[in-house]
Amino acid sequence: MLVAGIMTGTSVDAIDIATCDIESKGDRHTVSLRSFTSSPFLGDLRDLILRCLAGTATLQEMSDLPFELARGYAASLADHCSANDVHPELVAVHGQTIWHHPPVSTWQAGSGPALSALINLPVVSDFRSADLAVGGQGAPLVPIYDHAVYANDTINRVALNIGGMANMTVLVAGAPLDTLMAFDCGPGNVWMDHAARVTYGKSYDTNGSIARAGRVLRPMLAEMMSMPYFSMDPPKSTGRELFTTQELQRLVTKYSHPSSPLEDVLTTVTELTAWSIVDHVQRYAPSCQEVIVSGGGSQNTYLIERIAELSRESGSAWTISVDPLWAEKEAMAFAYLGWRSLHGLPGNVPSVTGAQRPVVLGTIARA
Amino acid sequence: MLVAGIMTGTSVDAIDIATCDIESKGDRHTVSLRSFTSSPFLGDLRDLILRCLAGTATLQEMSDLPFELARGYAASLADHCSANDVHPELVAVHGQTIWHHPPVSTWQAGSGPALSALINLPVVSDFRSADLAVGGQGAPLVPIYDHAVYANDTINRVALNIGGMANMTVLVAGAPLDTLMAFDCGPGNVWMDHAARVTYGKSYDTNGSIARAGRVLRPMLAEMMSMPYFSMDPPKSTGRELFTTQELQRLVTKYSHPSSPLEDVLTTVTELTAWSIVDHVQRYAPSCQEVIVSGGGSQNTYLIERIAELSRESGSAWTISVDPLWAEKEAMAFAYLGWRSLHGLPGNVPSVTGAQRPVVLGTIARA
Repeated sequence: MLVAGIMTGTSVDAIDIATCDIESKGDRHTVSLRSFTSSPFLGDLRDLILRCLAGTATLQEMSDLPFELARGYAASLADHCSANDVHPELVAVHGQTIWHHPPVSTWQAGSGPALSALINLPVVSDFRSADLAVGGQGAPLVPIYDHAVYANDTINRVALNIGGMANMTVLVAGAPLDTLMAFDCGPGNVWMDHAARVTYGKSYDTNGSIARAGRVLRPMLAEMMSMPYFSMDPPKSTGRELFTTQELQRLVTKYSHPSSPLEDVLTTVTELTAWSIVDHVQRYAPSCQEVIVSGGGSQNTYLIERIAELSRESGSAWTISVDPLWAEKEAMAFAYLGWRSLHGLPGNVPSVTGAQRPVVLGTIARA
Repeated sequence: MLVAGIMTGTSVDAIDIATCDIESKGDRHTVSLRSFTSSPFLGDLRDLILRCLAGTATLQEMSDLPFELARGYAASLADHCSANDVHPELVAVHGQTIWHHPPVSTWQAGSGPALSALINLPVVSDFRSADLAVGGQGAPLVPIYDHAVYANDTINRVALNIGGMANMTVLVAGAPLDTLMAFDCGPGNVWMDHAARVTYGKSYDTNGSIARAGRVLRPMLAEMMSMPYFSMDPPKSTGRELFTTQELQRLVTKYSHPSSPLEDVLTTVTELTAWSIVDHVQRYAPSCQEVIVSGGGSQNTYLIERIAELSRESGSAWTISVDPLWAEKEAMAFAYLGWRSLHGLPGNVPSVTGAQRPVVLGTIARA
């Protein structure tokens, strides 16, 4: 079955669309990428989203948002399908997260019924609400995809995603789904990107070339490593509310002297990110053999090198590789989650989200 | 199949729940009421809804609303099912209308996935969005239920609902669904209720006893009858934005002298409502034999008498009767609409809503 997954992340920069052939062979599912595009949001729609996120939108704009998103998704999907000559039978749309505060509520805007009516295809949407309603965090939802695609009967793996935060799914060889562990290990790109902005005015450190040129500020690194989040045991998750730009600014002011090279801040923050990843792999996936990296941070070659070196220095035997589908993964994961929902299969993993039970995620419109 | 319909209207006073046995016999569907309750909203939830409607809610409250509604619906449904010993297999929930401005957007709050997860049953929700997305007004949706339940092969009927506005579905004997006509003929209770408030401080004119005691202010009636809405041909729909309290106040100030009895205003407004209903039946259902009335206005005995008398005076031959299920009808209609969606049957009628095509309404969660 050809399924389209549509993903729009919290950075509100692009509509990612992946179409995947999804097949079921007994208990095993295969997900093969057929096509992928990432297209920018149109300006008016992006402005509307940002006003809603900022809490400055009117009631009318809040009501319009799910419909304007549906219209935007429909247009992007039509372009995608004609450019790639693909004809999906099902569309899974994550929607735009406007609010996410478990255990009370979560809001991924984007009208499934409107999108279904516009494109004349079944649409699965609103993936996080059901898990939240049964006591889960509504996140992370990608681990079940990691298990389907990366788990191996003989090799112990970790699927690592370096987005704004860094999270990992521990895939012990042959372990069943209901024992899965997945958590945020700490900051991903959030502090590195902020440091790139305040030092060199760049939105991110391409390939990690700035960080590579500097030296680690050891006292600053030591204070960051002592943050209580790092020593907590999973399940745990974090976000920009803990790893704030204000906290980074405070650390920079405290430890970076006017005479020290600007790049040292980036080198230090990159080192923290690498350390927290390696530290968590060693603590919670001690027999890991392979780490497979996705997310924008996978393109920071200096960061990946530092992870590999820190791992070797600590005597670990795992290898690290960048997922060839590092950019496509999240849209593919939601295509898979939509396919599961269509087939009545639960999409959350209670050991990961904290839900009381597995639930079929989302809601299906077939206008 | 036993289906529960949950309806919460714009007056935000109660959660109405009906369970119905719905059966399919060829093209005909039967809908039989099994149980019905109308329970008040809990205070905190009602306050939250009113803040959202007023546009004074925070972003967090706007996000919480669909979840708090789901929790409220789940609690009311659990009470209903245990008190009536019923076990529905499907739940259809209209949701709380927060915004309805076709052709751009409509918003019926109430999370289907959350409700489904809480009650462990399939839930159909968000009935108006798909029709709106294909160019319809997203309303009225009850006419397809009127056609299923009240249409007759030999008797020409009109299903009249007197809510805030008065609307009618013209059921020509044996006529197919796709030729159905339904429209708002003008104000229902909106002006009568307002007049009861400003004259006697009552929320409505019980049985029409106030109106019965007064006399019609003829010049005021004449000016009201000349409002352009009444002479427009269907399709047409209206709301409180046309029949405002300000406009009624202007008319009262213009025509009701300080010495004239207070009840005359109510008598006049009641006469207008009766006249507009009779006038529209004669214009658009000239061969009508039976008018079946539902909605709160069906309990205004003086209004119903005036409709019957005006009809006789004009030489019409139709009878008028109050639907025994006048209070239950809307919740039953949404149970039926949910059942249609579950079976992949369209729920809108393009000749009624103006949509480009019939669409399966809503979205189905099966957590």
